[in-house]
Amino acid sequence: MSLYRSQDPRLHAIKNRIRVVPDFPKPGIMFQDITTLLLDPKAFKDTIDLFVERYKGKNISIVAGIEARGFIFGPPIALAIGAKFVPLRKPKKLPGKVISQEYILEYGRDCLEMHVGGVEHGERALVVDDLVATGGTLCAAMDLLERVGAEIVECACVIELPELKGRERLNGKPLFVLVECFEC
Amino acid sequence: MSLYRSQDPRLHAIKNRIRVVPDFPKPGIMFQDITTLLLDPKAFKDTIDLFVERYKGKNISIVAGIEARGFIFGPPIALAIGAKFVPLRKPKKLPGKVISQEYILEYGRDCLEMHVGGVEHGERALVVDDLVATGGTLCAAMDLLERVGAEIVECACVIELPELKGRERLNGKPLFVLVECFEC
Repeated sequence: MSLYRSQDPRLHAIKNRIRVVPDFPKPGIMFQDITTLLLDPKAFKDTIDLFVERYKGKNISIVAGIEARGFIFGPPIALAIGAKFVPLRKPKKLPGKVISQEYILEYGRDCLEMHVGGVEHGERALVVDDLVATGGTLCAAMDLLERVGAEIVECACVIELPELKGRERLNGKPLFVLVECFEC
Repeated sequence: MSLYRSQDPRLHAIKNRIRVVPDFPKPGIMFQDITTLLLDPKAFKDTIDLFVERYKGKNISIVAGIEARGFIFGPPIALAIGAKFVPLRKPKKLPGKVISQEYILEYGRDCLEMHVGGVEHGERALVVDDLVATGGTLCAAMDLLERVGAEIVECACVIELPELKGRERLNGKPLFVLVECFEC
């Protein structure tokens, strides 16, 4: 489900604040830049509020954010709904005992790591990132959480690139986004 | 100025939630791990509240967070005080036009980049990171902001390692921390 076609006026302002940078990080990619959204305090707050309105009272005790832009959106949501924040990081960044999950992404192969010990069996988890493209990163994030017994409630992203069909790769797990971008 | 010796009971809980991981990322380093703090929603909220209580009403319009852990603490502060959030990133991560600043850190040499265009001359800026060690990263962050005309109000970190004397390297700019860790 996407809010994009709803009438909430906050969504229009949020979409307008996302800058498209052509040919980054390589020719042909239309990069969706959320740093311009962060420069508008009201639009950034509206972004967080839209997620919080959806997830408050849903018994979610884990918000997992994907490095690095998921670290910007995940913690304010976790704080507002009273959940733990679990960072999912690039290899060799987390100092404690970790589990790892490789995945394929648009520009090659990568890996996510998560500390063990922070998530208990049966906890309800939300996965947060800025953008869903092919869905590979979100799948790796969900795999990590499910390997330690968490239940995935939903993936939440600011932006979806529907033409890359990431939503279809999430093994039936729900995806919630604020903005859809086509011809990216 | 540090709050560490104050009587605020929240500080004790915050300090207790920070895990020390020996020999990371290399032998002899006692790594201060804030991910365990993030697993305690109350202690994480208290951490943000302590910063917000200090900076609210101080006419700060920029909160600059240093990749990656500064992205976890900076945005909630920015949202609470109504400031823009400006991410300071590792090279080649920001898609728009950037300025760069090299710096020396504990384990070698590194570089921070900032988008141009987000900060206006005379804006009052707060720099946020999880930890200050030798102070090199904070200096690079302040240099970037000052090059585009911002006025540095303060650097704010959760943890200071006083024995590394980072505070003395900040060219007189104030540093505010919640917790001091010795013998790290």
